[in-house]
Amino acid sequence: MAGFPILASRRLRSTPYTERVEAAGLTGYTIYNHMFLPTSFGSLEGDYKHLKEDVQIWDVSVERQVELRGPDAHKLAIMMSARDLTNAEPGRCYYAPICDGNGGMLNDPIALCLAPDRFWFSIADSDLVLWAAGLAEGMGLDVKVFEPDVSPLAIQGPKAEDLMAKIFGEEIRSVRFFRFGMFTWRDHELLIARSGWSKQGGFEIYMHDSKLGTQLWDDIWNAGGEFNLKPGCPNLIERIESGLLSYGNDMTREDTPLNCGLDRYISLDTHDFIGKSALQAQQEAGISRKLMGVRISGDKIAPLGKPVDCLSGDTVIGMLTSAVYSPDFDCNLGFAMVSSDYFAEGTNIQVALPDGVRHATICNLPFTQ
Amino acid sequence: MAGFPILASRRLRSTPYTERVEAAGLTGYTIYNHMFLPTSFGSLEGDYKHLKEDVQIWDVSVERQVELRGPDAHKLAIMMSARDLTNAEPGRCYYAPICDGNGGMLNDPIALCLAPDRFWFSIADSDLVLWAAGLAEGMGLDVKVFEPDVSPLAIQGPKAEDLMAKIFGEEIRSVRFFRFGMFTWRDHELLIARSGWSKQGGFEIYMHDSKLGTQLWDDIWNAGGEFNLKPGCPNLIERIESGLLSYGNDMTREDTPLNCGLDRYISLDTHDFIGKSALQAQQEAGISRKLMGVRISGDKIAPLGKPVDCLSGDTVIGMLTSAVYSPDFDCNLGFAMVSSDYFAEGTNIQVALPDGVRHATICNLPFTQ
Repeated sequence: MAGFPILASRRLRSTPYTERVEAAGLTGYTIYNHMFLPTSFGSLEGDYKHLKEDVQIWDVSVERQVELRGPDAHKLAIMMSARDLTNAEPGRCYYAPICDGNGGMLNDPIALCLAPDRFWFSIADSDLVLWAAGLAEGMGLDVKVFEPDVSPLAIQGPKAEDLMAKIFGEEIRSVRFFRFGMFTWRDHELLIARSGWSKQGGFEIYMHDSKLGTQLWDDIWNAGGEFNLKPGCPNLIERIESGLLSYGNDMTREDTPLNCGLDRYISLDTHDFIGKSALQAQQEAGISRKLMGVRISGDKIAPLGKPVDCLSGDTVIGMLTSAVYSPDFDCNLGFAMVSSDYFAEGTNIQVALPDGVRHATICNLPFTQ
Repeated sequence: MAGFPILASRRLRSTPYTERVEAAGLTGYTIYNHMFLPTSFGSLEGDYKHLKEDVQIWDVSVERQVELRGPDAHKLAIMMSARDLTNAEPGRCYYAPICDGNGGMLNDPIALCLAPDRFWFSIADSDLVLWAAGLAEGMGLDVKVFEPDVSPLAIQGPKAEDLMAKIFGEEIRSVRFFRFGMFTWRDHELLIARSGWSKQGGFEIYMHDSKLGTQLWDDIWNAGGEFNLKPGCPNLIERIESGLLSYGNDMTREDTPLNCGLDRYISLDTHDFIGKSALQAQQEAGISRKLMGVRISGDKIAPLGKPVDCLSGDTVIGMLTSAVYSPDFDCNLGFAMVSSDYFAEGTNIQVALPDGVRHATICNLPFTQ
C-alpha cells in the first residue's frame, strides 16, 4: 500500500491540529473514525525512544466522543457496557468494553462520567454512535446520542506532568490516573484526564471547540522546549510492549472480552447489560481461544499488513494479530489469538510470516522483561 | 495531505482484488468503510473520458453488505428505511435513505431483497451494521444482523453489457436497471445487479467468497481486450455531472433526505419508520436548506479538502460540499447546501474557495447541458 497518498475531504476529516502536525514534521498518517491520525514523525524507533524518555504532543482528535445526555443517559450507559457503570462517579474514567447480544466486541472506549445524566464514550475505530443511537431508539429511551465537537490532544511521556503543570498549574499534579478535572486556559474551561494510549504516563485534553485547536497546540508547543517536547502519536512498539490492544486489529466483533483477556474490565454478576448471558455461557463453557503474548525468533519483522497464521506443525491454531520488534526487549513481540491447547506460557508454536515460518513462544500479557 | 502513504492492517483492510488493482496501475487510494478504495489510475480526467466511452472494472469491495436475516428481517428493513420496503420483491434493488429519530441521514444504501426473510443493505461510508444491530437489540427483534463475506466488483461504462454477456451469457442483457439475478460462473452462483455508482450503465457483481476474487478479476480482465477494458473507480467528475451524492461529503447526519433533495426516494404517507414524524414536521414547516447544483466561474478548481462557505455579499448562506471541473460541461460544477432564499435556479451567489472568492450560479439537479 505504501506510496499512495490519501486526500482529505469532508468524509475523511482533517483535525483542528492538522496544520500544526504537518508543519511539525509528520511522515505518516492513518485513517481512524473517518479522520486523519498521525502514525509517524520520522521513524517508529526514534519516536518510541523519545516517548519513553521525554514528552510528546499527540493529535488524537480521532478519539471521537459519543455523548449520551438526558434522563436515560445513565441507563443506556449501563446497558451498553460490560463494565459495571452503575456506580459511575463524575470525574472518573472507565475502560468499558461494549458488546453485542452475542458478547462480540463492538468497541472498547473509555467512558467518562461528566454528570449523572451525561456520559462520553471516547471511542476506538467504529461508529459506536450508531449502536448507542440504535439502542436508544429501539428501547424508547429519553436520551440524546450525538458526537460533540471534542478533539482530544494527548501529552504523553515521563515529562508530561512537568510540562502540563507549567501550562495549567501545579494542581494538575493531583489528578489521579483515570480521573479528570476542569482546568482554566485562556478563559476556557478544559476537561483534562490523566490517561492516554501509552504506558509512559500523561494526560488527555478533551478540547471542546475546534476553533481553539491551533492556539492550544501553540501554547503547549511553546512551553515544551525545556522538556524536549516533540510531536508524536500512538506508537506501535510502545503499545505492544505495554500490552495495549487495538480494536479492529487485535479484537473484532468476532471476539468477546473473555477471548481478549479483558476479564477484569467486565462484571458478569452485577448489572444487566447487552451480551451478559452470552458471556456468562462462554465463561461457563470455557473459552476456545484467547489473545496471548508471543515472542518471535529471528530478525526484526516488518509491520503486518494483515493477520498471519499461527501454526503447530501443519495445523493452523490461531492468528498473529499485531507484531513488532522491540528494542528494549531486544526481541520481536506480538499478540496472537490462539486455541485453548496453546494458552500455557512457554508453549512453542510457529508463525507464518510473509518472509517465512518462524519459531515463537507463547507468554502471558502484559510482557515482562 | 498528499504524499503521506497509509499502510494496510486488519483494521484498514485490503480487498480480494487489491493485488490485481495495484498491478493494473493504481495511483491513488481512499479509505471507505475501514477498507481501501481506489481513487485513480493515472488521471481523474483520463479515467473520466474512458469511463464514458468504453468499460471499466472497479474494486468496490468497500460497499459492505449489512445482512438482515431471520423472521423479523423484513420488519427491521421497513423500520430502518425512509423508502417504503413493505412490498419489496426478491430480485430488486431499492435506493433507501436511512434516518435517525430526527430524520438525520445515517447512510444511503441500496437495499437488496434476497428473500422475504433476507435483505442486504449495500452501504455508503458509515457502520450501518451497528445502527441495525442496535435497533434489533433494543426492539427485541428475532433477526441476525451481520456483515457477510461479499466484495462487490463493478463493471461500468457503455460497453459493460457486451463485456458481461461475453462472460456470463446473453441472458445478462435481460436484467433490468436495479434488478438482479443469479449467474453461473465456474460452478459458482454469483449475484449480479444492473447498478453502480455512475450513470454510464453497468453491473455490480456481489462476489460472495474472498478466495474467488483473483480468479473473477482475471476472467473479466482477460475477456476485456476487445472492449478496451481498463481499471477504474468511482470518478469525481462523472459522479458530480451525474448528480450522484456522496454520503459524508454532500450529506451527513445533520441533513435529512428532504434537505438533500431525495424526496422521491422516501414515503411519508405509507409505512412506519424511524424518523417519519420528524420528516413529516419538516415537510409541513418547509425546509430551511437544500442541496442544489452550482456552476462556478473561473479556472479549473482543485478538489476540496473540506467544504467551503457559500456567500451572498458578506453573509454566509450555505456551503459548497463537492466541486470539480467538468470537461463535457466546460465549467466547474458542484453541490451546495444553501438556505431557502437561494433555492431558485439562476440565483447568483459566491463561493469562498481557498484561492479566492468566485461567482457561482444556483441550478437544479441533475445538471443539464
